[in-house]
Amino acid sequence: MSHINLGCTRCGASHLADMITLTCKECGSPLDVRYSGADSGRSESQVPMPFHSAESIVSLGEGNTPCLDMPTLGGLLGTQRLHAKLEFLNPTGSFKDRGTAVMMSVAKEHGVTELVEDSSGNAGASVSAYAARAGIKAHVFAPASAPQAKIQQIKVYGAETHLIEGSRDATTEAAMTYYTKHRMVYASHNLSPYFIEGTKTFAYEVARQFADGLPDHIVFPVGNGSLIIGAWKGFAEMKNAGLISKMPRLHCVQASAVMPIVAAYESSKDWTPAPDAKTIAGGISVGTPPRLQQVLDVLKDAKGVAVAVNDDEILRWQRLLAEKEGIYAEPTSAAAFAGLERLVSRGDVRPDEFVLVPITGFGLKDAPPV
Amino acid sequence: MSHINLGCTRCGASHLADMITLTCKECGSPLDVRYSGADSGRSESQVPMPFHSAESIVSLGEGNTPCLDMPTLGGLLGTQRLHAKLEFLNPTGSFKDRGTAVMMSVAKEHGVTELVEDSSGNAGASVSAYAARAGIKAHVFAPASAPQAKIQQIKVYGAETHLIEGSRDATTEAAMTYYTKHRMVYASHNLSPYFIEGTKTFAYEVARQFADGLPDHIVFPVGNGSLIIGAWKGFAEMKNAGLISKMPRLHCVQASAVMPIVAAYESSKDWTPAPDAKTIAGGISVGTPPRLQQVLDVLKDAKGVAVAVNDDEILRWQRLLAEKEGIYAEPTSAAAFAGLERLVSRGDVRPDEFVLVPITGFGLKDAPPV
Repeated sequence: MSHINLGCTRCGASHLADMITLTCKECGSPLDVRYSGADSGRSESQVPMPFHSAESIVSLGEGNTPCLDMPTLGGLLGTQRLHAKLEFLNPTGSFKDRGTAVMMSVAKEHGVTELVEDSSGNAGASVSAYAARAGIKAHVFAPASAPQAKIQQIKVYGAETHLIEGSRDATTEAAMTYYTKHRMVYASHNLSPYFIEGTKTFAYEVARQFADGLPDHIVFPVGNGSLIIGAWKGFAEMKNAGLISKMPRLHCVQASAVMPIVAAYESSKDWTPAPDAKTIAGGISVGTPPRLQQVLDVLKDAKGVAVAVNDDEILRWQRLLAEKEGIYAEPTSAAAFAGLERLVSRGDVRPDEFVLVPITGFGLKDAPPV
Repeated sequence: MSHINLGCTRCGASHLADMITLTCKECGSPLDVRYSGADSGRSESQVPMPFHSAESIVSLGEGNTPCLDMPTLGGLLGTQRLHAKLEFLNPTGSFKDRGTAVMMSVAKEHGVTELVEDSSGNAGASVSAYAARAGIKAHVFAPASAPQAKIQQIKVYGAETHLIEGSRDATTEAAMTYYTKHRMVYASHNLSPYFIEGTKTFAYEVARQFADGLPDHIVFPVGNGSLIIGAWKGFAEMKNAGLISKMPRLHCVQASAVMPIVAAYESSKDWTPAPDAKTIAGGISVGTPPRLQQVLDVLKDAKGVAVAVNDDEILRWQRLLAEKEGIYAEPTSAAAFAGLERLVSRGDVRPDEFVLVPITGFGLKDAPPV
């Protein structure tokens, strides 16, 4: 018998843990991995994982990314203790590798030989790489408008690459049509509950790296929300297991052109993206995130807020990160610092509080104009 | 009194440790850092460093890169135990960050405010980033023919970027003319003895990561040789301190179009690069490496050999790394695997021996044609 099942994030209904079921059969909501057995008595190094055998693990050395203090940017922002976690130092250059590693390990355990994924670029590159490592054939769907370096990277690892004209959502639709028609596994980083199990390692690492005191705030750039949801799940697990006493506040930053979560957080229920909505932060340009409600639940539980920032602010913070701290982030990642600036000016973050920002993707993947 | 001086790698003459002296005043040969005091009784975590105060340290979180087993490539090569150390997961995407971190820490300690560096791209990006972090103004000279992504990266961190037409050596000459004229510090990763002190951390990490048994062989792509020299220095220090009993064999791989070290190793003393010599492995395209003799000394002491590989082999191994193991290396890094193939076929590396290869730079910096 498996030690896990898939629980609905809305109605709680329980489902068998396979690689096919992506939404609740009762209400259509996304699923999370639930573990059987007691959660107490374990150590921080014992992270519950959905695969059954260590032999299933597909790894490229992801995780254990360094944390760095950011004194100059902290000074600019008026926060006395600002750290960044360099998530772009994962094997394919983005945090996605945490999620992909676990999703692909489960896929391997289930004997999957061919799968479909869609992505704005980073998750596609990650799935292409881990599929190569696992000996699984991958079909990666990406917007034709994705940065050339990301498309190139997806191809290099050997995935069959399908470039789709139109919006990010059009790419998802094309991927869904394809996997349905060809009866393949849909290894969606947005929907797969196993992906979240991988991103939760972010929280475990933060707890280990800051064992003498967790950050008061963590500020995430959010598109589909896989990192903020995973981080929340990790902290919640540790809290339930008595390993930490308090959850950091987890905040959400979106681009003002594509801000479904911010709109829902502010209860502007009539928000829809303009048909030609565009942001330089391609990694968070997601008009209809399937886990939107779950991100709102996370914000509520983790006392977070959601803010939107514009492209000028994003580009400014990308430049500041490089020129003041020597960190080359992609625009999506810089958005979190623009959001932090807003949180500080609004008083959500006080000057004496400890703030952590993940730098989710390498600037080499999405270079700014120079 | 300082705990270090700079010793000539050839005649042994001793020099004051400053940021100006780059070659021996007696014989013109490159210098290394020498530490005073006994080397025994320390632990592996106590790595001798040339700066005096922890407050001088300029860091972007370099080092502690993951090691990964490469079962599929090992199978292709006929080596039963092949590992890679993912040096491209350093903060600017190459191993250079190890050297730059220490060189820049010493520069900061010496009150340097402006410096000059020349590079085929990776060291330039690294110096630009660490200079930004340290608040030092950097002038980076690079060949106009360097990959666009590398030039872009140098600029992003804010260095004044000087693009020079012609060979890699022409870039060095332009940098030397410039620093002499403007009386600036020349923070050359090829000459600075402090740079080697940073790359030696590679060896300390390998000793920690493989505490149950060091690799039999480490295969390096070599241009100026800063990584193979640093690794040798680290292993030699540990051996002198009684921390390890045996030095791995350290091998050198060059591109056949630009192979001064291979030629010298093979005693073909009349070798000079063709005026239009070009290789896809831009990171090791160095016609006249100033530390050539030191690399030969390292090969002799570490029982290494030097081999040259051609561009077709390099591209083939770049593709194999991506498609078989999910690792996106730049061509320079792939050259080491092409070299390993040669070492295996020649019998220098036996099938049952443990081989480690550093993957020195991220493929995102120097993308292959797709």
